[in-house]
Amino acid sequence: MVLADTGAELPAGETASAAEGQGWSVGREALIEMAAAPGADIVLNAIVGAAGLEPTLAALEAGHTVALANKESLVAGGDLVLDAAKRGGGAIIPVDSEHSAILQCIEGKSPASVAALTLTASGGSLRDRSATSTAGATVEEALDHPTWSMGAKITIDSATLANKALEVIEAHVLYRVPYGSIRAVIHPQSIVHSFVEFVDGSVLAQLGLPNMESPILYALHFPNRVPDRELRTFDPVASSPLTFEEIDPVRYPLFGLGRSAGEAGGSAPAAFNAANEVAVRAFLGGKARFGEIVEVVAFTLDAIGYRPTKSLEDVLAADAEARRIAESRLRTIKATRS
Amino acid sequence: MVLADTGAELPAGETASAAEGQGWSVGREALIEMAAAPGADIVLNAIVGAAGLEPTLAALEAGHTVALANKESLVAGGDLVLDAAKRGGGAIIPVDSEHSAILQCIEGKSPASVAALTLTASGGSLRDRSATSTAGATVEEALDHPTWSMGAKITIDSATLANKALEVIEAHVLYRVPYGSIRAVIHPQSIVHSFVEFVDGSVLAQLGLPNMESPILYALHFPNRVPDRELRTFDPVASSPLTFEEIDPVRYPLFGLGRSAGEAGGSAPAAFNAANEVAVRAFLGGKARFGEIVEVVAFTLDAIGYRPTKSLEDVLAADAEARRIAESRLRTIKATRS
Repeated sequence: MVLADTGAELPAGETASAAEGQGWSVGREALIEMAAAPGADIVLNAIVGAAGLEPTLAALEAGHTVALANKESLVAGGDLVLDAAKRGGGAIIPVDSEHSAILQCIEGKSPASVAALTLTASGGSLRDRSATSTAGATVEEALDHPTWSMGAKITIDSATLANKALEVIEAHVLYRVPYGSIRAVIHPQSIVHSFVEFVDGSVLAQLGLPNMESPILYALHFPNRVPDRELRTFDPVASSPLTFEEIDPVRYPLFGLGRSAGEAGGSAPAAFNAANEVAVRAFLGGKARFGEIVEVVAFTLDAIGYRPTKSLEDVLAADAEARRIAESRLRTIKATRS
Repeated sequence: MVLADTGAELPAGETASAAEGQGWSVGREALIEMAAAPGADIVLNAIVGAAGLEPTLAALEAGHTVALANKESLVAGGDLVLDAAKRGGGAIIPVDSEHSAILQCIEGKSPASVAALTLTASGGSLRDRSATSTAGATVEEALDHPTWSMGAKITIDSATLANKALEVIEAHVLYRVPYGSIRAVIHPQSIVHSFVEFVDGSVLAQLGLPNMESPILYALHFPNRVPDRELRTFDPVASSPLTFEEIDPVRYPLFGLGRSAGEAGGSAPAAFNAANEVAVRAFLGGKARFGEIVEVVAFTLDAIGYRPTKSLEDVLAADAEARRIAESRLRTIKATRS
């Protein structure tokens, strides 16, 4: 079963469906019901944004295996999602290429042998421009991703590295590795998808040409691998050289903000994600400048402060409040501008 | 228990021991007896050359786990070694960094999911010289390895890539992957130790700074990993860039010769190894030029032809005959020269 949407980012608690207009069930309640319906071999959650949280919880409570392309479920929901999996007996198989890479490296190994994770980031569409010139980047420029072909929201998140911050949080939740042992590096070629360091200092990496078919195929058949000779495979000579750089905090301030939100825990990751969704939607709609995305997110995180999230209601409340604050900040910015 | 030697290469059927003169047992019979002695947790076979074959067979027949640094056991012995392991219940854990890397990638995975292997080679001490100028390289030049600190024999074998040919054969025997699916590439940084491609096109790699402590530690504790915080760990940014090149058959003719010997099977790999041992010993002793190593090996392989090896005696006979032919060829070369 595939849960997807129109690509528009909606608040948690609201969902649309790509099935709309095709006679299938649509809307939040319908998606939650479908996610929990008996008989599914695996539920692929490809909803964009925090709206994917409730279907994820429903599927896991129902004991389903969830192939999770909706990282926001883990960012906003964190422990709630793990608790739902524990209670219902469901399992999460990540579809994100970085987390699929980690799973491929640690599958069959002792969890206690894992010491550290390193995710890679392409650096996004604006990585070759001077840091100061990106503030005014156009939508078209920001959507022109150098290595991955993806939806609009995630392509903008790749340009700001908000996506990598979300993925660091996702990795922390999925693999229970402390934030101090999770790192991200810029890897312009997008060939190495993640590194896993073990306690003896040895490192495994998963590599492949940047396409989403591979991690989806792996997630749908895990723990088996099915032959796919249609996929062009990685060749070390053809892909040489492979390069890696530190993330520049001046160029990518959203990465540090998001990572800190993850470390703070409670409502912070949900607020980071919600504010970012609002700001990116405004940018894509021509209502905010590229450089204002980080301003909106930083303002929202400051304004909302920290609160614990013990229930789905707590998470949905933090999400909703962050959206209100972010929208309000966007109006203030616009008013100041004109 | 550690089986080692003085570093001098001796014919199969003869062994020395580093313990010599320290009151320990020495010589071929003693090593075979020690290898099979009850009570060993693991037998580390670090003998150099085909002389390591009989102790490997003895240890495996006795049901021991053998941490195998002696790749020549698998090159010369091949199926005999696998049969001994099967009969005695012993297991082989490779110590070679490339094969340790493969084991680390496939541990916990289904053997049927492995599609192809790629070993890496530093390119050795002479890789930055023009191919034509290496024929007259001195012993000192050929021993100056850029990334690995190893014994004399294997350092010369790295400069000729005979070592990589032996490792391709070793990988074929250990992991039952057809030669057509085993490749080697030049990787000057010696950070990636091997790649494993799975049937779905996904690739895993094992990485680490070039030191032998890591694979030895892994072999001794397999399948567990023990923390070693003394070891400096790999950092992708510090090690960037990682580069990969095809092996130039003109510069490294011994690689193709050895690989073909492996594919031919029977006595060919034992003969390749024995002739190479003789030629390298002559080079190290100042009795042959660097460029004459390949000449001696090629002549020997041509002269000895193919014959099946059904028993240890067959292997020892092929080894002995190859040594006689190689020695004779060295005398002819010397006579022609003066």
